[in-house]
Amino acid sequence: MTHSIIKLLEKRISANLFDPAHELPVADIEALVRVTTRAPTAYNLQNWRFIAVRSAKAKARLRAIAYGQKKVSDAAVTFILCGRLPDAETLPERLRPSVEAGFMPPAMAQSWQEGARAQYADAQTARDEAVRSATFAAATLIHAAEAQGLSSSAMVGFDAAALRQDFALPADEIPVMLVAVGRAADGNWPQKPRRPVSEVLDIL
Amino acid sequence: MTHSIIKLLEKRISANLFDPAHELPVADIEALVRVTTRAPTAYNLQNWRFIAVRSAKAKARLRAIAYGQKKVSDAAVTFILCGRLPDAETLPERLRPSVEAGFMPPAMAQSWQEGARAQYADAQTARDEAVRSATFAAATLIHAAEAQGLSSSAMVGFDAAALRQDFALPADEIPVMLVAVGRAADGNWPQKPRRPVSEVLDIL
Repeated sequence: MTHSIIKLLEKRISANLFDPAHELPVADIEALVRVTTRAPTAYNLQNWRFIAVRSAKAKARLRAIAYGQKKVSDAAVTFILCGRLPDAETLPERLRPSVEAGFMPPAMAQSWQEGARAQYADAQTARDEAVRSATFAAATLIHAAEAQGLSSSAMVGFDAAALRQDFALPADEIPVMLVAVGRAADGNWPQKPRRPVSEVLDIL
Repeated sequence: MTHSIIKLLEKRISANLFDPAHELPVADIEALVRVTTRAPTAYNLQNWRFIAVRSAKAKARLRAIAYGQKKVSDAAVTFILCGRLPDAETLPERLRPSVEAGFMPPAMAQSWQEGARAQYADAQTARDEAVRSATFAAATLIHAAEAQGLSSSAMVGFDAAALRQDFALPADEIPVMLVAVGRAADGNWPQKPRRPVSEVLDIL
């Protein structure tokens, strides 16, 4: 497996140290998010929102919520990845372009809406989907950043309730993860060794 | 953004139709999972397990649990991605190679264990982490498969309770997703259009 993408996935590290002088232009942030949204979501729900924390002032607020982690403010941008609780009522709008493009039959869009309504009536299932969608986005963002020669760090160490309040998240949004993106500084750790495949894989 | 990885992320589709004659050798499955485990996890917990469903018999069992979806058995392999509820007691073993490699101070490994113990005392937080880890793995598996010229489909449409029973998942494992991997057949839909970036991105 020698493809350049495989090499990128194999050598990725979660950076802890970022160059605080490095900035990302707004156009670059938008381009990263455009690629990020190609991640899959169930029913094509696209149940996510991305808050790119870029200014010194907003970074200071977020850093306090993330227990003072320096990388939150040192990285060019720290993204707050929000998953939204699935809302079947959003599906007609999300699927309309696929219907209009002619490949998705209108009746199928309707049946997907009914399917989603039934599936997410259970609160835990709905929350799981919000976490899945935002995490798919996080992985895609991280791989897109690597492709641009940038480094990243996914973080779950933050006060979710404080974040919700300070950044005014609506009730249906779950702050799933922070992802810092920027230029790695010197001194980051190597990749942490992984468990052997035999320990985590069963083939049936 | 013209890097080949960006192109790959941009053009990926979730395939619905797979070539049922295509098989993946065990060595290829192991190689895919080896790359998959380079995905990040909180505290380097690596709280996951991968069940590669490859035989006709096992595929038939899984397909029944996945409401008869044909791709489950048509794809060369359908992976069951299990996230494990984080167990801080596993961390000394997971982090030992990083300590032995000399970059992680032993005291830090111990403080991570204490951090994880506190963080995951809350059951919802623990479940969220299992979903996150397995989804990070799913995204990495999907991108690794694309790099090999294969196609994939992430699925959440399955009976989780039946899967748990039929595949004998232990109580601390959550079946987060199925991911079919194989050779796409003709007739798959194009990529479903995405929402405009301006609708999902806020820059602060």
